[in-house]
Amino acid sequence: MALNGNACIGQSGGPTIVINASMVGAVQAARDIPEIEDFYGAVYGLKGLLNEDLTELFREAPDTMEALKNCPSAAIGTARLKPKRPELERALEVFKAHNIRYFFYNGGNDTQEACHYISELSKESDWEMQVVGIPKTIDNDLAVTDHCPGYASAARYVAASCAFAGRDSYAFATPHVIECMGRHVGWLTAAAGAAKVDDASPPHLVYLPEQPVTREQFLSDCAEAYAKYGYLVVAVSEGFSLEGDEMATTSSKVDSFGHKRLGGVGRAVSDLLEEEGICDRSRDDKLGNLQRCFGWACSKVDLDEAYEVGRQAVLKAVNGETDIMVTIDRKSSDPYEATIGDTALMSVAGVEKVVPAEFINDASNGVSDAFMEYIKPLVSGAAQPIQDDLPRWPNLVGFPVEKKLDHYDV
Amino acid sequence: MALNGNACIGQSGGPTIVINASMVGAVQAARDIPEIEDFYGAVYGLKGLLNEDLTELFREAPDTMEALKNCPSAAIGTARLKPKRPELERALEVFKAHNIRYFFYNGGNDTQEACHYISELSKESDWEMQVVGIPKTIDNDLAVTDHCPGYASAARYVAASCAFAGRDSYAFATPHVIECMGRHVGWLTAAAGAAKVDDASPPHLVYLPEQPVTREQFLSDCAEAYAKYGYLVVAVSEGFSLEGDEMATTSSKVDSFGHKRLGGVGRAVSDLLEEEGICDRSRDDKLGNLQRCFGWACSKVDLDEAYEVGRQAVLKAVNGETDIMVTIDRKSSDPYEATIGDTALMSVAGVEKVVPAEFINDASNGVSDAFMEYIKPLVSGAAQPIQDDLPRWPNLVGFPVEKKLDHYDV
Repeated sequence: MALNGNACIGQSGGPTIVINASMVGAVQAARDIPEIEDFYGAVYGLKGLLNEDLTELFREAPDTMEALKNCPSAAIGTARLKPKRPELERALEVFKAHNIRYFFYNGGNDTQEACHYISELSKESDWEMQVVGIPKTIDNDLAVTDHCPGYASAARYVAASCAFAGRDSYAFATPHVIECMGRHVGWLTAAAGAAKVDDASPPHLVYLPEQPVTREQFLSDCAEAYAKYGYLVVAVSEGFSLEGDEMATTSSKVDSFGHKRLGGVGRAVSDLLEEEGICDRSRDDKLGNLQRCFGWACSKVDLDEAYEVGRQAVLKAVNGETDIMVTIDRKSSDPYEATIGDTALMSVAGVEKVVPAEFINDASNGVSDAFMEYIKPLVSGAAQPIQDDLPRWPNLVGFPVEKKLDHYDV
Repeated sequence: MALNGNACIGQSGGPTIVINASMVGAVQAARDIPEIEDFYGAVYGLKGLLNEDLTELFREAPDTMEALKNCPSAAIGTARLKPKRPELERALEVFKAHNIRYFFYNGGNDTQEACHYISELSKESDWEMQVVGIPKTIDNDLAVTDHCPGYASAARYVAASCAFAGRDSYAFATPHVIECMGRHVGWLTAAAGAAKVDDASPPHLVYLPEQPVTREQFLSDCAEAYAKYGYLVVAVSEGFSLEGDEMATTSSKVDSFGHKRLGGVGRAVSDLLEEEGICDRSRDDKLGNLQRCFGWACSKVDLDEAYEVGRQAVLKAVNGETDIMVTIDRKSSDPYEATIGDTALMSVAGVEKVVPAEFINDASNGVSDAFMEYIKPLVSGAAQPIQDDLPRWPNLVGFPVEKKLDHYDV
């Protein structure tokens, strides 16, 4: 028998183009479920939860929620916060104080780990609740699930950017280096490969953090491809480095997950091409934060799946499932077919899924046919036609829930 | 009576999203004109012209030309080359050798200047020809014409990027600095303003090179807007600097027009916000080269006008006009209406049109209502819906013209 009480959802970590679709999917599913009395959004994720900054999502206009489905980035606000034991205990206090029996947490592997600890704590305590993780990350590095909501749209942006930058490179007959997000995993950079129509089309070379190459190989790869095609588009991950080289691409600044703030490898290897005489002039672009919010790149499959994992998270929770993350299970690539499943949070918590060797070509400078089969259906459909108007969306009005506990300093 | 002979077109300087539309407009118009026997493309602009690297555009498949209308960046290739007297004389030799009576040169103010000198030289010589400049620049800094083909699409990209980045900034409640192209003129950065729906929507602050502000004003503007809106999107031109400050944003590298390669002001002011305690964390994105090639941002008005200026350049030339640049003359902003005119090359050659004071707000940190009236019709329509497929285009096959002169070293 399903628990009666309130539900709460938090958005966590870097936003994606479709993260709000998951939130809307969850809220719209919950509206039909009598056991869920109210649905709270944790304002700025865990930070908001710990401070009881909760907002009543059922009170938002249905039109607003519908419009937010197509709005990139976290509409309730997000935070990067890795909770320790005292924060987890506080979270449980907040759940109790606000009669929250259903907690949905939308994020990557750090988030799923936090989700698991919350679930464990609830099991130890006298507060029964259902905790379900909703996957989300443009990095695509969550284990078990075939891919992560948010990845396909970011991938579509990366691939399109490579195709467009390829025209610029072609026009000048110069190399053009594109730096893509990905600290330790090359999923997004690999997606650049989806832009390839044939051997001659960009990107000509793709380098992932999973497969460092030597400086010699990098330079000879570039020289050869540049000579062959007359122009050159190189996609590199922000976390890529030349084997044995200490590239000047790391900053001493770290975010609160302890990640180094990387950046600059694109510029560094572009400069290297000039310095080593591969070309007189090389250009570079760092795709940056637009990878996770450029809505015009939204993938149809991604949008639909993001909505569905949110919806299914609620249905599974009400069905008594807990300590799980919802997954996307691919049945077929052509035609593309996938179902929604789930997995124990422990199977994904803190695990980083790297690009497997069979998705990288033998020369470590491009993607394999197997990867092309994997990526094509994810990036091939547009979520919706571009409107004539510039993008605009409603904001949530915000219906703050009355606080019941003492103030808590995050 | 119109001259009989061949025509030649060159694409010059930084590409745009619609530069090929002008080329296609010119070639398609010329097909119906009996006096124009063949239409040559100068491969990589003036560089190709001087080396007799010419390609027969009439021999390309009509379908290819039609598809290239929607293809960003210079399909015949472009170059940045500021010709001196010997190069101009060589150009005239090439025109004579290949019976070229019509020369169309598509570019910015440096290009129009070169165009004018070629025209002058032809008048001094025994080689009668019609020289017509076709405007093109994302910088929008050509005089006389209301705006320049290429600007509106880049502007649409900048405005959309600001709107999207605004969601990211909103999601984290942190400042986000967007660096836009524009060495000395702020037209593109000002276009960010088009994303504004109301006072609270991004970008909250816009800084142009035309109006430097003091470090104190910049910091107090940012602190105030951040406190007011809870997040903050700041658009800055790559050429913006704080009054009296020597910002560490210039590089010693210069391009062959003698321009400094700027970059990094966005990062610099973003870091400043952290260092001065305006926020714990600030993000920045440099929109970079995608501003001139991101085809999904193509503006309908821009595409139509780019095609039309190319077409009209041919019609005007055949009508005996020479030493002119085609212009766009705005008649009305709402509803938007413009006609195609022309102006003497001397009136635009080497002149840089800055953003006028009446387009900038009194506080020098945003655009005025007059600018919004100017920019809105240019960026409000999409050229075409986004295809499901990732972008792809045909390349020109290339039908090289036989060389007739001795080799020339550019």
